Amino acid sequence: MDNFTYHNPVKIVFGKGSIAEISKLIDPNAKILMTFGGGSIKKNGVYDQVKRALAGRTMLEFGGIPANPEYDSLMEAVAIGRKEKIDVLLSVGGGSVLDGTKFIAVAIPWRGADPWDIVVSGKPAEDAIPIGCVLTLPATGSEMNCFAVISRASRKEKRAFSNPHVYPRFSVLDPETTFTLPPRQVANGIVDAFAHVMEQYMTFPQAAPLQDRQAEAILRTLIEIGPKTLAEPRDYDARASLVWCATQALNGLIGCGVAQDWATHMIGHELTALHGIDHAQSLAVVLPAILRHQKARKREKLSQFGRRVWGIEGGDADSLADQAIEKTEAFFRSLGVKTKLSEYGIPASAAQAVSAKLDARDAKLGEHEAIRGPQVAEILRICA
Amino acid sequence: MDNFTYHNPVKIVFGKGSIAEISKLIDPNAKILMTFGGGSIKKNGVYDQVKRALAGRTMLEFGGIPANPEYDSLMEAVAIGRKEKIDVLLSVGGGSVLDGTKFIAVAIPWRGADPWDIVVSGKPAEDAIPIGCVLTLPATGSEMNCFAVISRASRKEKRAFSNPHVYPRFSVLDPETTFTLPPRQVANGIVDAFAHVMEQYMTFPQAAPLQDRQAEAILRTLIEIGPKTLAEPRDYDARASLVWCATQALNGLIGCGVAQDWATHMIGHELTALHGIDHAQSLAVVLPAILRHQKARKREKLSQFGRRVWGIEGGDADSLADQAIEKTEAFFRSLGVKTKLSEYGIPASAAQAVSAKLDARDAKLGEHEAIRGPQVAEILRICA
Repeated sequence: MDNFTYHNPVKIVFGKGSIAEISKLIDPNAKILMTFGGGSIKKNGVYDQVKRALAGRTMLEFGGIPANPEYDSLMEAVAIGRKEKIDVLLSVGGGSVLDGTKFIAVAIPWRGADPWDIVVSGKPAEDAIPIGCVLTLPATGSEMNCFAVISRASRKEKRAFSNPHVYPRFSVLDPETTFTLPPRQVANGIVDAFAHVMEQYMTFPQAAPLQDRQAEAILRTLIEIGPKTLAEPRDYDARASLVWCATQALNGLIGCGVAQDWATHMIGHELTALHGIDHAQSLAVVLPAILRHQKARKREKLSQFGRRVWGIEGGDADSLADQAIEKTEAFFRSLGVKTKLSEYGIPASAAQAVSAKLDARDAKLGEHEAIRGPQVAEILRICA
Repeated sequence: MDNFTYHNPVKIVFGKGSIAEISKLIDPNAKILMTFGGGSIKKNGVYDQVKRALAGRTMLEFGGIPANPEYDSLMEAVAIGRKEKIDVLLSVGGGSVLDGTKFIAVAIPWRGADPWDIVVSGKPAEDAIPIGCVLTLPATGSEMNCFAVISRASRKEKRAFSNPHVYPRFSVLDPETTFTLPPRQVANGIVDAFAHVMEQYMTFPQAAPLQDRQAEAILRTLIEIGPKTLAEPRDYDARASLVWCATQALNGLIGCGVAQDWATHMIGHELTALHGIDHAQSLAVVLPAILRHQKARKREKLSQFGRRVWGIEGGDADSLADQAIEKTEAFFRSLGVKTKLSEYGIPASAAQAVSAKLDARDAKLGEHEAIRGPQVAEILRICA
């Protein structure tokens, strides 16, 4: 086990009716900027619940943050936040709204010339406006971490940043707010959470048996309750478990003391930037292909995953690994998420384009930093 | 799944050589009161590591905090803390030192007449001196929670309190500092962590499949690495896993959204207060007896525990439950921790004495609050 630091200060308020709690979580005198997405919160009652909880407060609104939150749009919110001297940001929506809000939070006090540097420079911002979160979509885990992924369409870029100042002060998770999500978004959320666990778990044996079993706990629960919550969206308990799995999948805990992969996400981000497919769709395509391409390096862990997560009995390590990959891909497909580039209308030439983009950034992906441009192209040919 | 709030702000710094980090974790101008126990930290090098990390700082020392930290002794530290206007407490030792330090932290600013009220009144203290922790014994989980258990020998009392102000600001966990622990303390730590998980997990099905599996992850890891780390105390990876299991066993995570038991601890505390047996010894005695006494109410969960944790195959729920209890008791015994009162020289009359003490406090124990005085006596007869 490697040395590690774990510090996750997010207060999670979880359960039915919990949006009312935000009145106690935000200073009564704070000037609030509420951020949200395309307006679904106005249809499902969440907007009204938030307004009721914060009746009488000084609150501005910034709506329209899209999936793959867009730099140009977020900069408009930054301008409002600066002009209005906002004290706190309240993100109401899914992971995209929250990721965008994290960028707004660091960009408002940022003194550098170009705020895009926050995302690409690797130099951490030293301050941020405090963030509160009302989550309405279980998927990214952003509600309990300090990561965000921001897109810039004009440059066809989609990039992640990390900053300890953007942990939400609180995240309110009411599973009932997710009952009206379209099946595609629920399925995407299941795949996203599953992939987050795999990025931290599916590497090589690292003498971290508790972290392994904590990861397997999330994977097995997703396999158990994923199809159920898709079929019965108003089953509270199944949906609550999905919400909690998605949060636990990327709050840092299962990654303590172990080397991690993240190649699937890095390649997936490029596919989304270039071709506009959903984030989770990109993961469902790339993850099985990476597992096949890296089978030799990941064989021991794949075999453990086959036995413990998929319950496969017997067979040698190689056969266990093959079966585990097949079951993973079949699981994604059973949720209605396709796993081949061609099924999304993405041409075979994408392999070379993505490979070239990552090569231009000198990307060295995976837990061994062994996936470079040529390997990226090979991986994308596997899932063509 | 029940509604819940989860907020654990402790910064964990984990791994070899991590004590040196405390120089960065404590304000250079802070006046520190370092607390410790019977002096083992002076033999195993931890005291020197702390002094080296904090060379040049203003630091007073308060040693001699015993296992089952004692009110009268802790009040001496409170007097020092008040007189010297201490800014921060640094607990260096195991869970007893840290629990005692948590009491000192709330007692220093406490304005009530009798500081014992902090423990028994149920009225939360509203302030505390900040606490840092260097942990040298994996067992109680106190390093990542806001609980403490304090004893008062003159009244034969041992009582728990909880206060959000006593979360350590940081806890430094270097598994190497535990290499020289006596086997009895290591075995006790394994039993303590196991029992902490059982108190939160072994109840009834509560539609919380992730929490169940997170609990089972800790139990299985303890079963796997417990005997190994007892046999090979200098195997870093096994010891690191024990340390991390003990922390995860009582940091609030696996108890999110579920009703909990804690009858084993409440009865065990009385046995320790009256008869002086180690905390973990009391748990090893009481837990199997409670499982036998409450088998009907816990049958479904016992059967799941038998299948998933102990790998028992086949058999009906009743037989699975019986086998699971037997395996649990045998596990404790395999670690060298006895499971009968008589083996510790405690007379059969203890059943009535403990029952009377809990009855006098009108205690209603267990997840159903169904264990009252008469049931306590029955339970203690089972483990006579």
